[in-house]
Amino acid sequence: MSKPLYHGYPPELSDEQAQFLLSNLKDWSIANGLAVRPAPSFVASSLDPAGVLATTAPVTLFPSLFPRHCYQEGLAIQKSYNELYSAIARDEEWLREIVEELAGVDEFVAKLWKVHLEVKKEGFVQDITLGLFRSDYMLHLDPEDIEAKPEIKQVEFNTIASSFGGLSSRVSQLHKHLLSIEAYPADASPAISQDTLPESKSVPSLAAGLAAAHIAYGPSKSENPLCVLFVVQDPERNVFDQRLLEYSLLNKSGVRSFRVPFSKVLDETKLDSQRNLIYRPKHAPGKEFEVSTVYFRAGYSPDDYLGDNEWGARLHIERSCAIKCPSILLQLAGCKKVQQVLATPHSPHLARFLSDEETVARVKKTFAPIYPLDRSEAGLEARKLATDTNSAQRYVLKPQREGGGNNIYRSNIPPFLATLPESSWPAYILMEMIEPPPANNVIIRNGEVRKGGVIGELGVYGVCLWRHGDGAADRGHILENWEAGYLLRTKGNESEEGGVAAGFGAVDSICLVDV
Amino acid sequence: MSKPLYHGYPPELSDEQAQFLLSNLKDWSIANGLAVRPAPSFVASSLDPAGVLATTAPVTLFPSLFPRHCYQEGLAIQKSYNELYSAIARDEEWLREIVEELAGVDEFVAKLWKVHLEVKKEGFVQDITLGLFRSDYMLHLDPEDIEAKPEIKQVEFNTIASSFGGLSSRVSQLHKHLLSIEAYPADASPAISQDTLPESKSVPSLAAGLAAAHIAYGPSKSENPLCVLFVVQDPERNVFDQRLLEYSLLNKSGVRSFRVPFSKVLDETKLDSQRNLIYRPKHAPGKEFEVSTVYFRAGYSPDDYLGDNEWGARLHIERSCAIKCPSILLQLAGCKKVQQVLATPHSPHLARFLSDEETVARVKKTFAPIYPLDRSEAGLEARKLATDTNSAQRYVLKPQREGGGNNIYRSNIPPFLATLPESSWPAYILMEMIEPPPANNVIIRNGEVRKGGVIGELGVYGVCLWRHGDGAADRGHILENWEAGYLLRTKGNESEEGGVAAGFGAVDSICLVDV
Repeated sequence: MSKPLYHGYPPELSDEQAQFLLSNLKDWSIANGLAVRPAPSFVASSLDPAGVLATTAPVTLFPSLFPRHCYQEGLAIQKSYNELYSAIARDEEWLREIVEELAGVDEFVAKLWKVHLEVKKEGFVQDITLGLFRSDYMLHLDPEDIEAKPEIKQVEFNTIASSFGGLSSRVSQLHKHLLSIEAYPADASPAISQDTLPESKSVPSLAAGLAAAHIAYGPSKSENPLCVLFVVQDPERNVFDQRLLEYSLLNKSGVRSFRVPFSKVLDETKLDSQRNLIYRPKHAPGKEFEVSTVYFRAGYSPDDYLGDNEWGARLHIERSCAIKCPSILLQLAGCKKVQQVLATPHSPHLARFLSDEETVARVKKTFAPIYPLDRSEAGLEARKLATDTNSAQRYVLKPQREGGGNNIYRSNIPPFLATLPESSWPAYILMEMIEPPPANNVIIRNGEVRKGGVIGELGVYGVCLWRHGDGAADRGHILENWEAGYLLRTKGNESEEGGVAAGFGAVDSICLVDV
Repeated sequence: MSKPLYHGYPPELSDEQAQFLLSNLKDWSIANGLAVRPAPSFVASSLDPAGVLATTAPVTLFPSLFPRHCYQEGLAIQKSYNELYSAIARDEEWLREIVEELAGVDEFVAKLWKVHLEVKKEGFVQDITLGLFRSDYMLHLDPEDIEAKPEIKQVEFNTIASSFGGLSSRVSQLHKHLLSIEAYPADASPAISQDTLPESKSVPSLAAGLAAAHIAYGPSKSENPLCVLFVVQDPERNVFDQRLLEYSLLNKSGVRSFRVPFSKVLDETKLDSQRNLIYRPKHAPGKEFEVSTVYFRAGYSPDDYLGDNEWGARLHIERSCAIKCPSILLQLAGCKKVQQVLATPHSPHLARFLSDEETVARVKKTFAPIYPLDRSEAGLEARKLATDTNSAQRYVLKPQREGGGNNIYRSNIPPFLATLPESSWPAYILMEMIEPPPANNVIIRNGEVRKGGVIGELGVYGVCLWRHGDGAADRGHILENWEAGYLLRTKGNESEEGGVAAGFGAVDSICLVDV
């Protein structure tokens, strides 16, 4: 393990200090919407059939230390990433090659692609796409170079349903509040100060992205009022994260939005003869809205597609005039396979999408080497690395599809691959492990307080709105492009998974340090 | 029963409408701090030992209709009420007479008075007092006069721990939000509109009162930083109501405050040689704050005084240099006996405290006739009314002490009095029942939805800061005086009690109607 970023952080707390910090944290979080619905394992649904209970979202007690230059680089490079993924989503030919290879081994990708092709055949009626992105990084500190400085290395790039944009604004406010009431003991200084705690502007920034799409959609064609549609899972424990965006969209931009469970899209919307997406709310019989923008907070995982109903809903939306966040092309651009193709050593692809050489080099610097497991030259090399117990130690095996929970780490890789027919191997990519410097923090989840070694993951949000045009991957089609705040997710380092919602970690904020 | 204010209000909801309204209400309330900690009867504390769960505060689904002229009168008269109670609290001689009579039958009043006298003997070191008041009214519509218009009649005047100032701002924002997303069906119009829903500014207004006291206190004399102390119950389920004031005080005025359970005041504070109240937080050993202002959210009921520890704490605070909200004199000014003395027909007392005849008349108009149960002429008349089953129908019997839960209504009065020795009767007052016009609403509490006839109680907050001076009841000593927002509390009309925290009702907001 490398040397820690900062010795003695976070400081030890006396019982009284811990109690003061916790009671302020628990009350502030509920008073300010930093909350989730409790998991059934915490509160049985029979106890609260109406679903009125809420609990503090899993959070860290302290903001985590994070090198200033890494934070700045993550934020600074986001606009280039927005541009990159927008260009990929516009380059159907390039994507097709990757997707068709994947489709053989990944039924979910195959089905998404089929929906795209079906709409393509008929012809698209909406040229504009919205991306609300989150680029996730871990700190990497070369364990073999004692002089090395930490760098950010990309873990993944989310093109659909990027979550925690609501709570991340709140957790950075929480930590600032705890600082302002001196809940952090004096020996946490000089690290924690109002200057070293950057506030995440993700709530207003992401909501402004939805508003930009809504405006770009133009006037209603059906003479109904316009609205944005949040397509959601049901039930959704992380509902406040989403509601915070909805409230900002309404209060700052005056844009109405509605939440519709993915399973009810077909029932509650229709396409008119111009393929305008018309929302007919059950709660307001006779009333209709024309949907300007569909914001998917569901549909990113095969688990969300129970059958024909959901696949039909996806096709229905893709066919419509609504701006999609994301379109199927954009969702597919977020495949790990795309990340792998870009990050394969000596890949020529980045230059295809980013005209500026300096930008290419800067983006490339955030990649950890990623290999395919196919029969290409790089793939054959990767197969050697992955099946050897020694070399596998430095790698993680990831499925191509979105969503956490299925990664295979280090020495578990060779026996896992041994259970799979080689023909299925191309459904996975092999990625060099990112080696984060040791760090410590305290996490509170469901009232349980756990202290110890942690790993943080920086997420940088991005908003990008573009016209597909003729599909050429040039910048001229980009209408809006901005960096949209940050998230830190922190998990105990005994786990190697990172999703807070899945119950492994916590939302966190950054305390900048110069290293 | 009189005619309802408005027919067909609130409108009937279809299942889909109710579900839309409820799901938006449940999410908005948690996202915006309109919450309480769940009662043990809802969530056993063994399930959540760390106390992280919260639930939507009991609220009404709809804002309740309320006559515009009554609302306006309640707000308009608040400054006069502030002046009145400030003058009473400065008139120790006048109060003494009342308190000494009460002390014989009410041990709590006797003990409070003893604390006051003890400090008086030693000499007071703080001349300024803060009142954060709430004047509570019900609508009264003379059931025997078909031409009558509704009027407000005062139920009580709170001089200590006036609650729900935090949640009342939020519930009025909630109802405005539900309107803005059209969660109220069209046939609730024309009643509900942005113009007819006055927002309650109670959070910033009450916090500004604390800030005004903090500033009036002047510079620290102990060379410690200054703070405000919230003296609270522990546990406190209604904690967010209080936290919202704390956050506003910090964020708008930059004033630090701390919460100290009443039982821990002696342990965590000390008086220095100048009787400055020094707070020594356990969570920050070695650190000291000088308390500018003590804000009591506990200590209003005998139940809060377990023994010598709490009585000692009360004396300790009363002796100190801190501005008290309230002082013991001010708390005693809130006795129902005072209200009764003022409201006894033909009472000369109001003119003693309010110089302006017009103001006297206006305040008097908000009184329901109140009688003593002593051996005065009015008292003997009252004893007749109270012991006769027929006439008792129009009355309520109230104990002199603060806090709900002990009122005796209508036909229950004669048998209740029969169980008491006549010598104890003066501990009660007899008040003509206020006859509110029938109204309907829907209340959600712990996820349970109850619909039906309701009774609303308007609370108008007031902030008043004054110097005691030589105790003369003139206006010259008043430093600050403002009306500070409103609260509507609504309860099912099957109950005759009004406290939301006690589990009988809900916080509500007002929809103005012209009647």
